[in-house]
Amino acid sequence: MSTMPPISASTKFCAVIGNPISHSLSPAIHNAAFQELGLDFVYLACRVEDVKGALAGMRALENFRGLSVTIPHKIEIMKYCDEINDVDRSIGSINTVIHEGDKLLAMGTDGPGALKALTDAGLAMDGKTILMLGAGGAARAIAFTLARDTKAVEITLLDLNESTLKGLASDLNAGTSTRISSALMTEAALAEAMERADIIINCTPVGMHPNVDASVVPVELFRPGQAVFDVVYTPLQTKLLRDAASKGLKTVSGVEMFINQAALQFEQFTGKDAPVEVMRRVVMEHLKK
Amino acid sequence: MSTMPPISASTKFCAVIGNPISHSLSPAIHNAAFQELGLDFVYLACRVEDVKGALAGMRALENFRGLSVTIPHKIEIMKYCDEINDVDRSIGSINTVIHEGDKLLAMGTDGPGALKALTDAGLAMDGKTILMLGAGGAARAIAFTLARDTKAVEITLLDLNESTLKGLASDLNAGTSTRISSALMTEAALAEAMERADIIINCTPVGMHPNVDASVVPVELFRPGQAVFDVVYTPLQTKLLRDAASKGLKTVSGVEMFINQAALQFEQFTGKDAPVEVMRRVVMEHLKK
Repeated sequence: MSTMPPISASTKFCAVIGNPISHSLSPAIHNAAFQELGLDFVYLACRVEDVKGALAGMRALENFRGLSVTIPHKIEIMKYCDEINDVDRSIGSINTVIHEGDKLLAMGTDGPGALKALTDAGLAMDGKTILMLGAGGAARAIAFTLARDTKAVEITLLDLNESTLKGLASDLNAGTSTRISSALMTEAALAEAMERADIIINCTPVGMHPNVDASVVPVELFRPGQAVFDVVYTPLQTKLLRDAASKGLKTVSGVEMFINQAALQFEQFTGKDAPVEVMRRVVMEHLKK
Repeated sequence: MSTMPPISASTKFCAVIGNPISHSLSPAIHNAAFQELGLDFVYLACRVEDVKGALAGMRALENFRGLSVTIPHKIEIMKYCDEINDVDRSIGSINTVIHEGDKLLAMGTDGPGALKALTDAGLAMDGKTILMLGAGGAARAIAFTLARDTKAVEITLLDLNESTLKGLASDLNAGTSTRISSALMTEAALAEAMERADIIINCTPVGMHPNVDASVVPVELFRPGQAVFDVVYTPLQTKLLRDAASKGLKTVSGVEMFINQAALQFEQFTGKDAPVEVMRRVVMEHLKK
């Protein structure tokens, strides 16, 4: 049982929408943060198929303040929002909707959450070559953020799907000035890319529970001085990160990106600095169950 | 601060919608009742102008279980619901929407709430003549319920507005078999009706705070054996009820109708018997502030 302020007509509410939604940690994280700061907010979780209807409801329910948006709605929902900034349009998906007056503002916090995870870990991007493994939705958000908001010198993309790969490469070339290289994911391409990479970011689901003994990168390819970030956070330490750590490399778990994307959403919902340690504690308690 | 179960994806939520909504007691009442029974429900209050959008959202948000509907939406909202029973169609307004599977079911609990208030007070309707003061929305709900669900022998309607009066009289004649009489509210018509009435129900706003010294019925018109019910509940004891009590008559405060309509909504929301005493306590605490 947790303690909440009494709900009244002044209580604002937020929700995560997606399908499935039953395992979402978002209600636990955001409600703990609201309570920590004594804010008159409540956070719900809703299974939704009809995104358009959900946003019609958000417009009509005047204290429905914010949405976290998850699979499969992160792309479709953009159609029904009023304002989306250029970088989120380039990324092509969003994870946050804010109800501001009579407008619905869409934005993504996955890329900024990943960047904050990297910088909080002491990694500077300036002049670095970044290797992105996978070119799907998470890779798009992270690559655009790193290309636009850091001084990384080059981003290398590897993926098994040629159209996904070329799509992201050409969108990055059109939307940013960072040098972009891309190649189909082969043993040779990976080995070559690993030789040049300073920071390796896994954006594929490889290594996710229950396939915890899988990794995209053979351990012998790691070189001293590299840093490795894995967007997968179940388990908290994937085989990729365990292998990298065994070679003495700096590693960053995807859970930090998850916490930071939620903290950035919280700041959009409330206008307050997020109580990140409270949010981290809730995430960790749930992930250890 | 009150104690609630943690909110998760299995938490259902309900809300009151209306405009204005800022003074609604419904969140306090229903959340206290949910907590009393340990139910995984949360109740919100939302200012709404766009009823159609609000119901589109209710359909899309799959755990949005129930709505309490208040002014000005009790009539318009019927258009956007899937099922409404005959008595509620005749009444022409509803105060409750239940999200059941992919259907929105509309119903009214004001009339049944009033009837329960009367019967809980020990009043039998059988063979009685009932005088309704006012023929507006509350009168419609109560008159239809009494005409259909009791053995009252006659319902007399008095109102200052001829079209409102005739509309309700003809709808009651069309929809029920109870004897209906109606007259424009004049001193003479009121005196005549008070001579025949067993139960007097005030459905006008006369006597409501701040006009607490007003009453529709001159005190000298009360007769022994009559009972008086006032839908107004601010103050809890209106001048009408104080005058009736001073003549030794049985009185029923509108707060009992308010509590019972909420209890009946709660039972629709949850499928559980409402903890009426808890709900009454919350209402009384708020009204005494």
